[in-house]
Amino acid sequence: MAKACVNNLFVSLDGFAAGEFVTFDQPIGEAQALFSYFDGRGIEGVDKVDAPVTADRALFAMWGQGIGAEIMGRKKFGPQTGPWPDDGWRGWWGEEPPFKTPCFVLTHHPREPMEFDNGTSFHFIDASPAEALAEATSAADGGNVRIGGGPSMVRQFLADGLVDFMHLVIVPVTLGRGVWLWEGLEGLEKDFTIESLTTASGLTHQLWNRRG
Amino acid sequence: MAKACVNNLFVSLDGFAAGEFVTFDQPIGEAQALFSYFDGRGIEGVDKVDAPVTADRALFAMWGQGIGAEIMGRKKFGPQTGPWPDDGWRGWWGEEPPFKTPCFVLTHHPREPMEFDNGTSFHFIDASPAEALAEATSAADGGNVRIGGGPSMVRQFLADGLVDFMHLVIVPVTLGRGVWLWEGLEGLEKDFTIESLTTASGLTHQLWNRRG
Repeated sequence: MAKACVNNLFVSLDGFAAGEFVTFDQPIGEAQALFSYFDGRGIEGVDKVDAPVTADRALFAMWGQGIGAEIMGRKKFGPQTGPWPDDGWRGWWGEEPPFKTPCFVLTHHPREPMEFDNGTSFHFIDASPAEALAEATSAADGGNVRIGGGPSMVRQFLADGLVDFMHLVIVPVTLGRGVWLWEGLEGLEKDFTIESLTTASGLTHQLWNRRG
Repeated sequence: MAKACVNNLFVSLDGFAAGEFVTFDQPIGEAQALFSYFDGRGIEGVDKVDAPVTADRALFAMWGQGIGAEIMGRKKFGPQTGPWPDDGWRGWWGEEPPFKTPCFVLTHHPREPMEFDNGTSFHFIDASPAEALAEATSAADGGNVRIGGGPSMVRQFLADGLVDFMHLVIVPVTLGRGVWLWEGLEGLEKDFTIESLTTASGLTHQLWNRRG
């Protein structure tokens, strides 16, 4: 059975998972403090860097394991809104997107897909969460599907009961504003078993597995 | 820089890492209690099983990440001693060894290599730890080298200062006998930074990274 997985979802103590505004200069909006603990290297696994293998990095490395496709919100792909401008934009990552799988970008403005040499492709679909998950599961070819965010989109998949596994990272900061992850998710924990552990960095990792 | 990595080394509270005797029926000797917490699935990563993703499994999954070659002691390959009998033995794992890389088996009785369809190969060499590491590093083609055990062999690599990273798993059992991992390693911790964390299962994971 393929699983729908949320990986490395960083949330502040007050429940904010990303800023309200996305610009070209600041892709994750106002919530940079959330990522002060994360250097981006973990997602490559333990092999790509000389840096020490911390528990944080080991757990972040689940990001890539067994994933065969991703679904992402439009703002994760780019800051544009409305009909797509003819601006040559191919995502925040240049010609080396880290995904290396098909990625489905949720948008009300479908367009032709984009392909990259490293195995990444972006497919722009106007679909409900359940429809997108069905399409991504098929494209994943037996692998799992990463529910890639941003947080509004993760929240929608959680509300619809579509998430099988979630790696939540609780960061010891209070942001005061942003996208509140928990909106409308009262009692979410009832559907999951939850394991918590805190590492030397001060991060608390929670592994949410949907009850069988 | 390639790293020499010890992954998933299980040790009891009293420091024993495996039993004294290896037989065909009991490959890890008398120390089965050490593995009562480990179902063998973690080494495949998070993708291969429907079971919940626990912190233990997430950390065990470092076993395969970024590894390009392994070095193992002779008893990890088989229970024979002395000159190799003509018994058709191809390792404990049948035709699907989990390694999927070149593996160097330390033995005083070199023999022809064995190849498997899944990318695993066994090369039988009579070499010092440093010589074996140089050969495996070359074969790893930019990947890291797993120091695969058994514990006597890991201890020798530790004593020779050849280990860059060690994932030690402390199991809350007392074995009373077996191979004592710590023999001759007084002050080993001075060369490493060590992060410890304990999971819900009761296992304590320690990540030893050699100081830069």
